[in-house]
Amino acid sequence: MNSDMLVRITRYYRALNRLRAIGLEKVFAHNLADAAGVSAAVVRKDFSILAIHGQKRGGYEITDLIDRISGILGKGEPQNVIVVGCGRIGKALMHYSGFEPDGIRIAAGFDSDPLVYSDASHPVPVYPISRLDEMVDALDAKVAIITVPESAAADTAEKLMEAGIKGILNFSPITLKPHPAAKGDNPVIIHNINIALELEQIFYQIQFPDEKKQKDTEE
Amino acid sequence: MNSDMLVRITRYYRALNRLRAIGLEKVFAHNLADAAGVSAAVVRKDFSILAIHGQKRGGYEITDLIDRISGILGKGEPQNVIVVGCGRIGKALMHYSGFEPDGIRIAAGFDSDPLVYSDASHPVPVYPISRLDEMVDALDAKVAIITVPESAAADTAEKLMEAGIKGILNFSPITLKPHPAAKGDNPVIIHNINIALELEQIFYQIQFPDEKKQKDTEE
Repeated sequence: MNSDMLVRITRYYRALNRLRAIGLEKVFAHNLADAAGVSAAVVRKDFSILAIHGQKRGGYEITDLIDRISGILGKGEPQNVIVVGCGRIGKALMHYSGFEPDGIRIAAGFDSDPLVYSDASHPVPVYPISRLDEMVDALDAKVAIITVPESAAADTAEKLMEAGIKGILNFSPITLKPHPAAKGDNPVIIHNINIALELEQIFYQIQFPDEKKQKDTEE
Repeated sequence: MNSDMLVRITRYYRALNRLRAIGLEKVFAHNLADAAGVSAAVVRKDFSILAIHGQKRGGYEITDLIDRISGILGKGEPQNVIVVGCGRIGKALMHYSGFEPDGIRIAAGFDSDPLVYSDASHPVPVYPISRLDEMVDALDAKVAIITVPESAAADTAEKLMEAGIKGILNFSPITLKPHPAAKGDNPVIIHNINIALELEQIFYQIQFPDEKKQKDTEE
């Protein structure tokens, strides 16, 4: 499956979860087409490639689609994600509810500052960074979000990889390069989101509009 | 200039500002190579393309490089950026200091909730959304960050474009498509950062490691 199709499938999945949540049982290709920003023909083609079949009278059964797409996206139980670095951005992410339709849950935070991890007002438990290995294990967490200061980012990534984390979403303003945690392992998946760099690029594209096209995180 | 080169130039610029801030006057290609994650040969080639020349005894003068690269990146005075939607993520961004080395400044926030815009504890002024046009004008703001709920994102983008904003960094979990604010104008530049989608993709890449390579916001 190429990256564009993955993005579309993910969008169908999110739309389907929302539709199910409001009580609908059936959906048509054109409904999902709107959600994914493509034509109904593209939706039908994607489903055809994935061997997903519609109903005789047209349309698809929502729960059936969700089951099929869950399987394709490798989804099962809600996935636990941890946040390391519970400053303002980290705390904002801990409160963020936008992950729920995807079966993703921020299960815990970690910080090195006792004032932060002793604070009982966080929406999820916050542990000292010294408990990382133990809790990654206990939570079966595979993915972590890094929101530590730049100077701590590389070290944090190392600790996470040693703890068994397989994927990192990095908000620290330094680009982390993937490398395998251990010999023979797949490299840890790292996505870098550099907010300052994004703004820089926007300013540049405003100045020089004929250059590279619009950019989305899905590209 | 292609996108990769733009990213490298932006990284050189940030590194140079930091080096100048700690009092250095001279830099060598290999120093910037480390900052940008490339070889010194690539740095020298970039500078050659940009007609930037080094000193006789080797190396480059930092203030000279900063001046030249500022010009290339179209930088002048610090650029004012506004944040619309002062919930947790919006507030976190208002406090974020990581933009300073780039000459970017969050100058104001906007919100529709009186409890939010009447709160005097924000690090920058927060105005009611009704004052958007007036303040975008007063601040000469060209770029806005959207951190509103999904249901308000499209409407917010429209208001921003009508107010004269030329670039948007969208954190709302809905993909905004660029279109020109007015006939004949360049389309507004929109970068979408969808945190839930990023996590989804990381989970998928962990499951199916042979698929598309690592992704950075710079790709």
